[in-house]
Amino acid sequence: MLPIITAFATSPDKGRGLARDMRVRWALEEVGQPYAVKLVSFAEMKQGEHLARHPFGQIPTYEDGELVLFESAAIVLHLAETHEGLFPADADGRARAITWMFSAQTTVEQPIVEREQAILVERDKPWFAERGEMLDERVRNRLRALSARLGTSEWLDGPFSAGDLTMVLVLRRLETSSLLGEFPNLVDYVARGKARPAYQRAYDDQHAVFTALTKS
Amino acid sequence: MLPIITAFATSPDKGRGLARDMRVRWALEEVGQPYAVKLVSFAEMKQGEHLARHPFGQIPTYEDGELVLFESAAIVLHLAETHEGLFPADADGRARAITWMFSAQTTVEQPIVEREQAILVERDKPWFAERGEMLDERVRNRLRALSARLGTSEWLDGPFSAGDLTMVLVLRRLETSSLLGEFPNLVDYVARGKARPAYQRAYDDQHAVFTALTKS
Repeated sequence: MLPIITAFATSPDKGRGLARDMRVRWALEEVGQPYAVKLVSFAEMKQGEHLARHPFGQIPTYEDGELVLFESAAIVLHLAETHEGLFPADADGRARAITWMFSAQTTVEQPIVEREQAILVERDKPWFAERGEMLDERVRNRLRALSARLGTSEWLDGPFSAGDLTMVLVLRRLETSSLLGEFPNLVDYVARGKARPAYQRAYDDQHAVFTALTKS
Repeated sequence: MLPIITAFATSPDKGRGLARDMRVRWALEEVGQPYAVKLVSFAEMKQGEHLARHPFGQIPTYEDGELVLFESAAIVLHLAETHEGLFPADADGRARAITWMFSAQTTVEQPIVEREQAILVERDKPWFAERGEMLDERVRNRLRALSARLGTSEWLDGPFSAGDLTMVLVLRRLETSSLLGEFPNLVDYVARGKARPAYQRAYDDQHAVFTALTKS
């Protein structure tokens, strides 16, 4: 039996690989683990069967026999622990890769998500211009620090790791803004991530869900 | 040599245990690992020596010989991996505990931090009342789902784990609001966490930093 992940039946990102199943798909491709996908509708996500998998009614989830996981980063970490290819071999390097995973998911993503939600929900509010500048500046502060640490390195800490996988996808959320472009080394970093064959396979697979949808 | 953590020299929370060193202190106490504390000022946090430890200039950090980690959850995870007491013995249980750690740090904490920042920065803005209601509702949605999953269980998944440690401290950020009180089982859950002797030792130690400060 292959492990089964869940993904949006109709992804709000229209197949641009910004939904969180992309993190798990990319990790699965990096480690060479075949998998099955169960697509769930928005209605199904909030119902019993899916809520048993994911208490917050989101995607992705991961099922492998008796084991049921949710939270994309936890699934990526589990794959990195149980397969070769996403963690360095030494324990210290592994602990540092996990640090970058949490850093991407919390310190860096938090202001990015807050900015995204404001654009989505508050764009027409009278306060949007003033808040928007503040939110941009919060994101910029994180990018500035990340850019300084990355410097001219290829990846955040030695070879490509689950930390880079997570960070690249967090930064991709800024692709439609001009913020990322202020930090050329981060633009190149994201491009290096996207150039990986495993990324491309994962991207194509999640995009195919959208393509099939628009054809039907 | 003891491992060294960093913490605020003058914590903005005035010793209420809401700064993120509390997560690491609690974990260290749970596993019985003695440690040393280096206090850093806000100015020091943004300078070279500390930025070498923590690229985003925050606390806590963790140093043990050659190993330098940042991000409180990554440090807690490292302690749970290298000591007994914060992860279940079986691999599946461990993966599920890590899922709860990420869930606490991202899905649950994200709207809580956003609400906190609005109260801090936007309280006097003309839009605060309208945004405030929206932010409360986002937090409430997460608490409702968490409360439903916890039910009448003592902890989130079997025995107390690093997942509970992280979640309890995330929920504590709501103690001064009325939101948590809407979910009595979550109030009891937080109280159970705070009643643990390791929590109390960690709390007392971080509070002593503040007491020393006010005496000097």
